[in-house]
Amino acid sequence: MAETTIYQTCTASIEETDIGELLKCVAEQAQQQREDLISGINSFYLIFAGALVFFMQLGFAMLCAGSIREKNVKNVLLWNLLDSAGGAFGFWSLGYAFAYGGDDPTSSQKTFIGNAGFFLTGDTDMEFWFFQFAFACALSSIVAGTIAERCQMMAYLCYSIFLCGFVYPVCAHAFWSANGFLSAFAKEPLWGTGVIDLAGSGPVHMCGGVAALVMALVLGPRRGRFHDDDGNVLEEPKPMGPHSVALQFLGTFALWFGWYGFNPGSTLKIHSAQLGDVASLVAVNTTLGAAAGALSGMFTSTILDERKTGVYTFDTTAAMNGCLTGLVAITAGCATVEPWAGFVIGLVAGWVYLGASALILRLKIDDAVDAIPVHMFGGAWGVLATGLFSNPNRMRLAGYATGNLGWFYEWGRGSGNFTLMGIQICSILFVFGWTVCIFTPFCYVLKFLNWLRIDPIEEEVGMDISRHKGSAYQSEDTNEKAVSELNTSRRKLQMDLSSSGKSGKSFRRRVSKSSDNPIPAGDSMGGSEHAREDAEEAA
Amino acid sequence: MAETTIYQTCTASIEETDIGELLKCVAEQAQQQREDLISGINSFYLIFAGALVFFMQLGFAMLCAGSIREKNVKNVLLWNLLDSAGGAFGFWSLGYAFAYGGDDPTSSQKTFIGNAGFFLTGDTDMEFWFFQFAFACALSSIVAGTIAERCQMMAYLCYSIFLCGFVYPVCAHAFWSANGFLSAFAKEPLWGTGVIDLAGSGPVHMCGGVAALVMALVLGPRRGRFHDDDGNVLEEPKPMGPHSVALQFLGTFALWFGWYGFNPGSTLKIHSAQLGDVASLVAVNTTLGAAAGALSGMFTSTILDERKTGVYTFDTTAAMNGCLTGLVAITAGCATVEPWAGFVIGLVAGWVYLGASALILRLKIDDAVDAIPVHMFGGAWGVLATGLFSNPNRMRLAGYATGNLGWFYEWGRGSGNFTLMGIQICSILFVFGWTVCIFTPFCYVLKFLNWLRIDPIEEEVGMDISRHKGSAYQSEDTNEKAVSELNTSRRKLQMDLSSSGKSGKSFRRRVSKSSDNPIPAGDSMGGSEHAREDAEEAA
Amino acid sequence: MAETTIYQTCTASIEETDIGELLKCVAEQAQQQREDLISGINSFYLIFAGALVFFMQLGFAMLCAGSIREKNVKNVLLWNLLDSAGGAFGFWSLGYAFAYGGDDPTSSQKTFIGNAGFFLTGDTDMEFWFFQFAFACALSSIVAGTIAERCQMMAYLCYSIFLCGFVYPVCAHAFWSANGFLSAFAKEPLWGTGVIDLAGSGPVHMCGGVAALVMALVLGPRRGRFHDDDGNVLEEPKPMGPHSVALQFLGTFALWFGWYGFNPGSTLKIHSAQLGDVASLVAVNTTLGAAAGALSGMFTSTILDERKTGVYTFDTTAAMNGCLTGLVAITAGCATVEPWAGFVIGLVAGWVYLGASALILRLKIDDAVDAIPVHMFGGAWGVLATGLFSNPNRMRLAGYATGNLGWFYEWGRGSGNFTLMGIQICSILFVFGWTVCIFTPFCYVLKFLNWLRIDPIEEEVGMDISRHKGSAYQSEDTNEKAVSELNTSRRKLQMDLSSSGKSGKSFRRRVSKSSDNPIPAGDSMGGSEHAREDAEEAA
Repeated sequence: MAETTIYQTCTASIEETDIGELLKCVAEQAQQQREDLISGINSFYLIFAGALVFFMQLGFAMLCAGSIREKNVKNVLLWNLLDSAGGAFGFWSLGYAFAYGGDDPTSSQKTFIGNAGFFLTGDTDMEFWFFQFAFACALSSIVAGTIAERCQMMAYLCYSIFLCGFVYPVCAHAFWSANGFLSAFAKEPLWGTGVIDLAGSGPVHMCGGVAALVMALVLGPRRGRFHDDDGNVLEEPKPMGPHSVALQFLGTFALWFGWYGFNPGSTLKIHSAQLGDVASLVAVNTTLGAAAGALSGMFTSTILDERKTGVYTFDTTAAMNGCLTGLVAITAGCATVEPWAGFVIGLVAGWVYLGASALILRLKIDDAVDAIPVHMFGGAWGVLATGLFSNPNRMRLAGYATGNLGWFYEWGRGSGNFTLMGIQICSILFVFGWTVCIFTPFCYVLKFLNWLRIDPIEEEVGMDISRHKGSAYQSEDTNEKAVSELNTSRRKLQMDLSSSGKSGKSFRRRVSKSSDNPIPAGDSMGGSEHAREDAEEAA
Repeated sequence: MAETTIYQTCTASIEETDIGELLKCVAEQAQQQREDLISGINSFYLIFAGALVFFMQLGFAMLCAGSIREKNVKNVLLWNLLDSAGGAFGFWSLGYAFAYGGDDPTSSQKTFIGNAGFFLTGDTDMEFWFFQFAFACALSSIVAGTIAERCQMMAYLCYSIFLCGFVYPVCAHAFWSANGFLSAFAKEPLWGTGVIDLAGSGPVHMCGGVAALVMALVLGPRRGRFHDDDGNVLEEPKPMGPHSVALQFLGTFALWFGWYGFNPGSTLKIHSAQLGDVASLVAVNTTLGAAAGALSGMFTSTILDERKTGVYTFDTTAAMNGCLTGLVAITAGCATVEPWAGFVIGLVAGWVYLGASALILRLKIDDAVDAIPVHMFGGAWGVLATGLFSNPNRMRLAGYATGNLGWFYEWGRGSGNFTLMGIQICSILFVFGWTVCIFTPFCYVLKFLNWLRIDPIEEEVGMDISRHKGSAYQSEDTNEKAVSELNTSRRKLQMDLSSSGKSGKSFRRRVSKSSDNPIPAGDSMGGSEHAREDAEEAA
Repeated sequence: MAETTIYQTCTASIEETDIGELLKCVAEQAQQQREDLISGINSFYLIFAGALVFFMQLGFAMLCAGSIREKNVKNVLLWNLLDSAGGAFGFWSLGYAFAYGGDDPTSSQKTFIGNAGFFLTGDTDMEFWFFQFAFACALSSIVAGTIAERCQMMAYLCYSIFLCGFVYPVCAHAFWSANGFLSAFAKEPLWGTGVIDLAGSGPVHMCGGVAALVMALVLGPRRGRFHDDDGNVLEEPKPMGPHSVALQFLGTFALWFGWYGFNPGSTLKIHSAQLGDVASLVAVNTTLGAAAGALSGMFTSTILDERKTGVYTFDTTAAMNGCLTGLVAITAGCATVEPWAGFVIGLVAGWVYLGASALILRLKIDDAVDAIPVHMFGGAWGVLATGLFSNPNRMRLAGYATGNLGWFYEWGRGSGNFTLMGIQICSILFVFGWTVCIFTPFCYVLKFLNWLRIDPIEEEVGMDISRHKGSAYQSEDTNEKAVSELNTSRRKLQMDLSSSGKSGKSFRRRVSKSSDNPIPAGDSMGGSEHAREDAEEAA
């Protein structure tokens, strides 16, 4: 590195004898270099964390695709790709500007939306945009799962842009912008504290979950899910999917992995021991929340089922969705609760999932991937739990005001101060109210335009054939005639090999197996069948 | 940390009163410590970026496997694993030395290939090798997709080593070595500027795409793709695959994710605000290029199809390959163009893909995964677009000479200076010419040796059976007799439970479902069927 | 950044004229800032490396699921999720405390297990816990694969908690705790050196592999694997699975990728050029070990098969498991051997795999995913190889004592000093002995309680139906009647379009294709079928 050193820089303009000035120069140059380095490191951090968050798109796509019926797999996978593509466009053009554009941390004014940085014009932190873009995509993917198998492409496109470009940015602005009315990072935060939601149980997961609920209500259930062809209510909802549990698990693991970008990345900076400690705690809490959710979701369902049927079964869906609900719930408080509380939050999240899932089934709301229980109920529980369990030390380290603590800690110090809980509850109500109020009319407009629901015949056939040029999976029958021809020619070679004594013993052992599995035999790696046979015969 | 502090180190050898010397010592020690730290951080950066680039191998493998017919899935997956394994060997033994060995930044001499560091001997930057190795693998995987379903293992092995060990290194040397004739990082770069290709639209993607084209031409199409059994031309090419669209999407998402290592990692360093800004811009442009490519690829195909058939369909292949073409195209200029230009480059890339894909189909070139349109045409467009859109500010920040700007900016300042565009066009011609000239005779030698194409009978049977010991997927029929036996014994238990009143109501609800799904019932988690039954009877 | 600068901090308390004091203050403040930054960076490093290690869970899950028969896919996927969830619980509650709790680097006392930090109480490095938790999960997943398709859920739960909470922590303590009796990082390491095992060929992979062996022996083989229904030995073992080679490859790539967190992350720190160099070497060696293992595994199997059958086949299992064995083997010595040695270690690992796999098959030990050859034999070879190839320079850089070198280097300097080899052999014996001695009685207790093996009827039916509410994959037949109805209505529209001359030519081209693939036709994106038709008719 042929860089000029600080000392050289300073001595170039200051006499070596003027030690006081020189020292000042050296100290301030070093400080600048340090800040320069820190800036690079934090970019590094956000780029990689953002990439992990983006990876969650892979997870959502696989989870959704696995959870539904085979005949709509291409459709839902395409939606998930468009969540990323359209989400990028929506967030680039409008969303980012509405969420964070023109933030002024020095002003105590509260604004409803931002108003600068459309199309990334002006002086925008690129790494921050990148990290936030991945959040917007995730939100859109939450809805895609719920409404799969019955929603028109046109409706999908409209709501996807509307969510990423407007509905979500307003939530994000309220929670996280320096001028947001709920923000803990405002100059004068609400009730001296502001909402604690590190990575978005509220503005991301709950917002997405509520949008999914509204859409599911307006769309109605899949045909045949709760009613027979004559419209009579079925005794039990008809199960529809999952067509591939392997894809579901793939998606679940991918989401859990991506959450290590989602949550720790939300500290945004990593340039000090304190920031490192916070990010590490976040990673630990994320782990424990996910683990506890999976365990409580699955075992509770096992126990309930055993009481009904007398047999122990282990529900993979309960395990996976319990895990995801745990992740959603720990997202708000992961920086401000102790590990034991992270575990408890996940534990309860598993129950929240089971209860909410049973509830929406009873209400005959059709959620193809159970995203409403996971994200809406899980998100609300997460925001609430943060108001219960936030620990003063952890809050201080994570940079939150510590005037109002989690309710349990307030009780612990004998006050019962409900301020933080109050803010958390208000935040839940805001996300719910805002999303319902803005998204319901939107959905009815789509319905009125006849853009919402696919034709019954298309629904029966499946979107893959009707709109995407054929099925997602294409099996061909093996050409048995060709296989037998190949085997015959190879067996002949083996006979020759065998009779020539080259490998008689091992050959016989293999022949006995040949009925199970066509043995590949008789061809050299490079030459043709016949060349080899001839050679053998010649020998 | 029990480390000795700088101050202690300096005062150990210098009197505390000799403040001038002490200050100099402290300043220079601090500088050294800083450079030490920076070196560690940059290693960290390249290791993780390299790991993400390696992850693209997973993406290529899944995309290729999903795109072809079921009968060759094992074959193409194995090739992709060997791309990593053989690529590592090829790049370790020869490739790296040819590409970067013995670089001398102080000399203005141009060399054709490097000549030191074979087998990682000498003083090599390990992290740089690791990052570059992953690039070489990617290139080899590009070809594997195109020629799937008809190429011999022997030919695959030969070309894979040849590409990673020689063809690609020469391209990389020309573009990126300090002694490369096109390099922007040379002491005296070509025409004062050198080629701008941050992460390899040219030397990686185009080189791979051209090799794929040559190989596809020499190999010929899959049997039955364009001709019937009697050799008559089919009216329409017969579609062959994809056998699993889910795997295709999995691969596409994995590639997009991995690209966040490929492109941002190509800044190689991240230790300052400026480097961080460049890497962030790269991440943003990568996102916008991919998004725009997916959108323009899909919607253009939708509109074209609607004009033909009167129906709106949404082609998943167009969306995925549009996205990948966008990624390939933005790879060259991602550090030097503005976000809006990144979006435009992606938009055009979607059209480039559709046009190129239609073209090679019309020319009856059989590309099993459309890698030629994506990588060759997309790569060429990327290098060209960089010559059009490179912005002076971004070029300066990214460390390029700014004497010659992107053509549009030259027009903007009224000059029309075509130098940068000229270099970019020369670079395209060089990659195309070099790869065609070296790879065509190589393919004909393979053909002459009869190592190239598999036997017709093997092609009909599929490589999995003929060369890889059986099909990739094995379904077994469920043993219905055993299922019914299990259900009977469990129903009996349920009756007992029911009549004993333990869970009568919920039991009845479940029975109605039992015809769809065999109910698991009757066994305790730990004990045996009969133990439990007996216990119940006893009760 | 409105941070106070060092210079301001110092001049606030010290007169500007007292330059000596001021210099001291500035120097020490700068040092503190540096250490603060370093701490943040190392947290960053461990969080991301830990996330990559966690990603291996995805890999194990997919590899296991792909390797077995379709009827137990849900079961084994659930186990893998529980490995993460239960592993997190086990390692949080007990495991971490036993492994590292209360480490005292200043004491030369050796302890058997740690005794502090249960449930993450006390002052624990969160990032270190997170990184180590991911290791514990990996170990549990190793066993899950081997015993798939025949083990009860209860047994799985018990051993999983027992392994993560106790068996593994004891191994980790011995190898890596500052008070471990084998540890190289102890104040007075064993025989002046201690064992060299950077990332755990021994305590992780071998421990998991030995546990798998014990469990497989006590459980016995799957029904029908080695014996027919009457208990007669089959001539050849009956192949069972893989049901999806695509999932196997997905898992293999995911594991290889995750290993870039597993191995480089095990340097734990990355804040200097030296640490960066070590981590980079680790990444390079990991690559070469994997590559060499894949190549030697596959080609050796090809050559052996060709001698038997006269045909060149390419075994995908040998390639994948060779690769994984190479990764397992290089894990111990990746920081202390030269790249060429890394390649050699991988090469031999491929042979170790093939030999061990044949051996356990001959011994009629049923390992559903060949985890015993890969992890137990591969791990042992890795620990041994480190004793052979450890290079003095690399050892010094990686922070190991260099009194005793790898045996080959000892010969090179003419000594033949066997100390390091001796320690490595003792370490292998310790892991083997400890795991066998503690795990064998444990398995017999499970067997005695009848918690171990599933009922024969369940084994025949498969666990997915018997315990997990149905099969992992659900295909539905396409409703052909609906498809034909859709096509009819769309063809009618096309006719109309065609006769109206709008797109006659292209329409005809498409019709010829319609027999292969139902053409989507006739519907506008937003409107209903009939609305459009009417419109066309009106026109």
